[in-house]
Amino acid sequence: MARRLRILALLCLFAISGLGTIRARQGEGIRGFFPSSAGRQAELEKAFQQVPTPERARLDLWALTAEPRVAGTPEDYRTARFVLAQFRAAGLEAQIVEYDVLLPMPREVRVDLVEPIKRQGPTPEGGWNAAQGAHDRKVIAGYNAYSPSGNVTAEVVYANYGLPEDYDYLRQAGIDVAGKIVLVRYGKCFRGVKPYVAERRGAAGVLIYSDPAEDGYRQGDPFPKGPWRPPTGVQRGSILYLTEYAGDPLTPGVGATPKAKRLAINDVTTLPRIPTTPISYEDATPILENLGGPVAPPAWQGALPFTYHVGPGSAKVHLKLDMEFRTRPIWNVIARLPGTVHPDEWVVLGNHRDAWTYGAVDAASGTAPLLGVARGLGELLRQGWKPSRTVILASWDAEEFGLIGSTEWAEENAEALARHAVAYLNMDSGVAGSHFAASAVPSLSRLIREVAQEVKDPASGRSVYAVWSEEDGKVRREGGIPCAVLKSSRGTEEAGARVGDLGSGSDYTPFLQHLGVPALDLGFGGPYGVYHSIYDNFEWMQKFGDPHFRYSVAAAQIFGTLALRLAEADLLPFDFEDYGNAVRGYLDDLEQDVKKEGGPLQFDGVKSSLTGFAQAAKELGEAVTATSANGGRMPSQVRAANQALMEVERAFLLEGGLPRRSWFRHAFYAPGVYTGYCAVIFPGVREAASRKDWSAAAQQLDQIRQALDRGTGTLARAVAALGGAGARIGP
Amino acid sequence: MARRLRILALLCLFAISGLGTIRARQGEGIRGFFPSSAGRQAELEKAFQQVPTPERARLDLWALTAEPRVAGTPEDYRTARFVLAQFRAAGLEAQIVEYDVLLPMPREVRVDLVEPIKRQGPTPEGGWNAAQGAHDRKVIAGYNAYSPSGNVTAEVVYANYGLPEDYDYLRQAGIDVAGKIVLVRYGKCFRGVKPYVAERRGAAGVLIYSDPAEDGYRQGDPFPKGPWRPPTGVQRGSILYLTEYAGDPLTPGVGATPKAKRLAINDVTTLPRIPTTPISYEDATPILENLGGPVAPPAWQGALPFTYHVGPGSAKVHLKLDMEFRTRPIWNVIARLPGTVHPDEWVVLGNHRDAWTYGAVDAASGTAPLLGVARGLGELLRQGWKPSRTVILASWDAEEFGLIGSTEWAEENAEALARHAVAYLNMDSGVAGSHFAASAVPSLSRLIREVAQEVKDPASGRSVYAVWSEEDGKVRREGGIPCAVLKSSRGTEEAGARVGDLGSGSDYTPFLQHLGVPALDLGFGGPYGVYHSIYDNFEWMQKFGDPHFRYSVAAAQIFGTLALRLAEADLLPFDFEDYGNAVRGYLDDLEQDVKKEGGPLQFDGVKSSLTGFAQAAKELGEAVTATSANGGRMPSQVRAANQALMEVERAFLLEGGLPRRSWFRHAFYAPGVYTGYCAVIFPGVREAASRKDWSAAAQQLDQIRQALDRGTGTLARAVAALGGAGARIGP
Repeated sequence: MARRLRILALLCLFAISGLGTIRARQGEGIRGFFPSSAGRQAELEKAFQQVPTPERARLDLWALTAEPRVAGTPEDYRTARFVLAQFRAAGLEAQIVEYDVLLPMPREVRVDLVEPIKRQGPTPEGGWNAAQGAHDRKVIAGYNAYSPSGNVTAEVVYANYGLPEDYDYLRQAGIDVAGKIVLVRYGKCFRGVKPYVAERRGAAGVLIYSDPAEDGYRQGDPFPKGPWRPPTGVQRGSILYLTEYAGDPLTPGVGATPKAKRLAINDVTTLPRIPTTPISYEDATPILENLGGPVAPPAWQGALPFTYHVGPGSAKVHLKLDMEFRTRPIWNVIARLPGTVHPDEWVVLGNHRDAWTYGAVDAASGTAPLLGVARGLGELLRQGWKPSRTVILASWDAEEFGLIGSTEWAEENAEALARHAVAYLNMDSGVAGSHFAASAVPSLSRLIREVAQEVKDPASGRSVYAVWSEEDGKVRREGGIPCAVLKSSRGTEEAGARVGDLGSGSDYTPFLQHLGVPALDLGFGGPYGVYHSIYDNFEWMQKFGDPHFRYSVAAAQIFGTLALRLAEADLLPFDFEDYGNAVRGYLDDLEQDVKKEGGPLQFDGVKSSLTGFAQAAKELGEAVTATSANGGRMPSQVRAANQALMEVERAFLLEGGLPRRSWFRHAFYAPGVYTGYCAVIFPGVREAASRKDWSAAAQQLDQIRQALDRGTGTLARAVAALGGAGARIGP
Repeated sequence: MARRLRILALLCLFAISGLGTIRARQGEGIRGFFPSSAGRQAELEKAFQQVPTPERARLDLWALTAEPRVAGTPEDYRTARFVLAQFRAAGLEAQIVEYDVLLPMPREVRVDLVEPIKRQGPTPEGGWNAAQGAHDRKVIAGYNAYSPSGNVTAEVVYANYGLPEDYDYLRQAGIDVAGKIVLVRYGKCFRGVKPYVAERRGAAGVLIYSDPAEDGYRQGDPFPKGPWRPPTGVQRGSILYLTEYAGDPLTPGVGATPKAKRLAINDVTTLPRIPTTPISYEDATPILENLGGPVAPPAWQGALPFTYHVGPGSAKVHLKLDMEFRTRPIWNVIARLPGTVHPDEWVVLGNHRDAWTYGAVDAASGTAPLLGVARGLGELLRQGWKPSRTVILASWDAEEFGLIGSTEWAEENAEALARHAVAYLNMDSGVAGSHFAASAVPSLSRLIREVAQEVKDPASGRSVYAVWSEEDGKVRREGGIPCAVLKSSRGTEEAGARVGDLGSGSDYTPFLQHLGVPALDLGFGGPYGVYHSIYDNFEWMQKFGDPHFRYSVAAAQIFGTLALRLAEADLLPFDFEDYGNAVRGYLDDLEQDVKKEGGPLQFDGVKSSLTGFAQAAKELGEAVTATSANGGRMPSQVRAANQALMEVERAFLLEGGLPRRSWFRHAFYAPGVYTGYCAVIFPGVREAASRKDWSAAAQQLDQIRQALDRGTGTLARAVAALGGAGARIGP
């Protein structure tokens, strides 16, 4: 799914937790490490960071992008073997883990204009590399995975981004979309939301096109002159209704092993029901140009050189889709470095390997750093190091279809992960430019900022942190650098190195939102308009994204250093005071919004629980400081404390999950039903409030209170294990 | 100059005076009228308002737009004769007043692309009316009046709107415009500012093009499908440096009569010195498309279908202009209705008759209402009415070249106007749509709102005031109605029927800013993209602007009712409490801005003077109320009061004028040097402050204090004439 998703997910909502300055590392120490071990850790990190090289990153990317690698295809399997070989060559134990999942492939895609002129479509993508024109034939047709087959001829209505408010506008203008094909543009929400809404409004089919205002010439020069989408570029992508549950549609909640019980396809609730397909603006132009009806409002105008009308009238389209829905094998590649001190505490790093086309950015640019991490850890092993905790590296498959590889693995290993997972670190598209961005649970944002201080920004030679905190919210204003990664930022009102909230759109979702594993997601963004098109290829990367493959190295350094911190820390470096502050901000926002709606919710209870949580977090901080000052605690105490710290996030899971979508279980975060990528904070309350069901909202608010209370209890266990705040070492 | 200008001028800055609710008319009375005369006035207004008809408005517009009427041409003279005949047929005394002024006309205009491809330009405008294609040849070439002749071949740099900050950006990007032709887009400022800045930055020539983002397809369908600018549409227009002085460049400050002393052309300071010409986006496209250099920043991107670069490189243009600079005759048409009670108190109404092409909106749509007013007043005369004050109707010539007809007449009659002028009412483009808008000195805004309550909005049948106050700041948000008249509004933070500040761009300038005559400007705006092009014609008006010519009638009704109020009022209906409030707002803004700059200005003095002014205004209000309640005063007292009221605005004139541009003499209002249309408030202070010359700024602030003190003195005379605030009738 990747770049586009990831970028939006990273930045669409910023946790206020992300705004503080970095708390001082104790002296020359490292947060989470006792003075006695900090020195060794610093050396370890330094040794690790010397392993990844631009040359190697370039070779990895070259190998990974040699041919398209759609999940479930022989080419995908070849790259699984490649990754397996790299893991093993690095000295790690690794294996391929296969699942059988529902992957639809296109047999035929036709989008013909039949009135007022006849024109056959879609136009093939192409022209990026005349010398290698033969490659183009290997690329899968532009399609939206999980669209049903269909054969519709109908008039067209332009519905802007295809959000509920867009249809409300059309209705007010007296325009009925029933039985029509709606033409919507990419942007503002996960593409799966568009057919979801269109279906509920009675449309007969959906065309989703890439407007040049979004990622084409209005942003900058199109490929190959620049990094943006050329006229025939099509954005492929899944339209699975992922806000219900992620992963294989046939096996919700369980791993898609051969013996798993599977739903009948008609019982699946995440499948769209009207034919939907993506088109280029080359193909959208003759349709839009021939729409009658009223002029579309200013906010609906894109960058094509005419006035957009909403239709219907004049333009009539024949949309024919023939999709082959079949269960196919997919291949995760999993490497495991067993922990020697705390083998039952797992740090998991993941990236998806599958791609819609050549996938240089999405997500080979994250796979190369993952391989860099593997080699770095392998080198440390060779030097005699053994990890304290178990480290797991995962190369996920079928992310593009719906976070499938990661979800099936997480579901299959749900019990073990619930007991053992310390954190899940995700890197989807690792490098599309030079602008660092991260999203995380608030307890991990400080760690990201600390690690970003330890890694050099290749262009400036300063730390990634320094550049990140300077440019955050600023780059967007700079002329000439329209920068996808910064486009969805909250604005410029807050400076600093901000860490966003996790919504959905990449493989952290099953870990965080289904299993309560603390998660983070990171990468370097930049001007990137070729998402999910044939142009996301090696040439693009070498020309625009990371010409010297130095940001790939920086990505590997950050990714691996984070893993090393979490794997080796004496006391896990979560910061729950940050978490408490973030939740306070969320609650203030919620209370304000509820007040605006006139909702009769009482916030006293939840606020008092939050105060308790914050107090416990403060005591934990003091206990950690005391422990650290005293050079450590007895191993059993520390182990008990870490066990509790690991479980705080789990305490935020709702027992029965969210109403109407029980797969999503986190009390604070879920992907928004109408955004899909961006996090909705307190989804249970907000969704009830949006229906004005105040009694349900009050119940959900009480669930948040209970979640906080559980968190407080878990924190208290950690404090107690350390002998209480400010306590001295016991006997 | 007209529509575009007028619209901007009307709305770019809103006086806070415009925000109050209407003070209650006393009982069934009319403000400014004693109870004994209010009834008769109401009948008079009613009788007047019945005269203008849509049929007549349509005929006037048809006659006026039959052929292009560029100032100084035989066609222009024919329309002068037409207007003269209409005035006389209405029963008014009227005559043509001729001046000899410098009017340059194009002999040759060439804009050829010579590299990287050869392409001859400009493309002729056309295609609007195939059946009358012959008309097109009558239309003057697209040119910028007062551009020098020139012959330059040079590389091109794109400089956005051509404002100082745009060149600063280029310089920072390392791009030198010296010796280059700069390509700038229309918008943001008076077009004359563009060559003014370009010249100072060393450019060799200027091309000004109409980007479809500004008034083309990005706003709505182009003509003939919609009201916006088609590909070949060119915006002609003067580039005289009008911020120095208005009117004939050869005769600053004096009327351009045959015997006037004229400057040698080389001594004229208002003439641009580098060749400058307007082009269509059809002709700008191949230039822009072939620009090298960096990608232009996001805010510089227009609506053409490619990524804008700033250049230079690749594109090279040959610009050849051959201009005939000659003194030519122009013809104002002046009608005069002598006052019978106060013949020495003059109410002047004006509109310009000349046009760059057919000028249906600009400004035949104001000429038709002026003729409607003439006929309405003529009808009242026939019914036995005689105006109390002298009413003067003026059909100005050569406004498009630089407010020339009005300025020469105002300069020639400067002494008389200084003694006799009550107010100047301007209507440039009277109707481009259905959205009422007005600018005025603050003492007149209340009167405009009162009169707008007396006239029906044709579409809704409610009052113009009701519609105006509802839609002000709101229409812009409505889908599908991109509305020029509302585009430059301050935003939506303040509702109500707002009246703007007068900047420049139409014929009120010599009256208000040179002579201190209270002025207003009004009209109905709407989506209008064909400004100064061949497409501003009768067909456009009938299709889009005012299909049933009912808004032309409403415009005449408002225009004439305003005149009747001012001509007949017992006590002139100025409101100086509103003026005081407006100045308070201006001063607060100024103080804040100065504070931000860290300027050491002391505001105590000027504020204390303002308090005195406000106090005097309050006492005047009370005296007026008392007088009115008592049914009047002795005629000599009222006459003395009115005499003082007429002179308050004159008290705001600076003795020596503004520094560096002494023709502009108003202490509060001048056109901005870098905006041209929009008013700069307290220009003396602000211009000194922008140079950080705080001692000059302090001097200028003291001038404002003195102006206010003079105003207070004048108000006190009026109060004294009425026997003091709250006084009863004397013996």
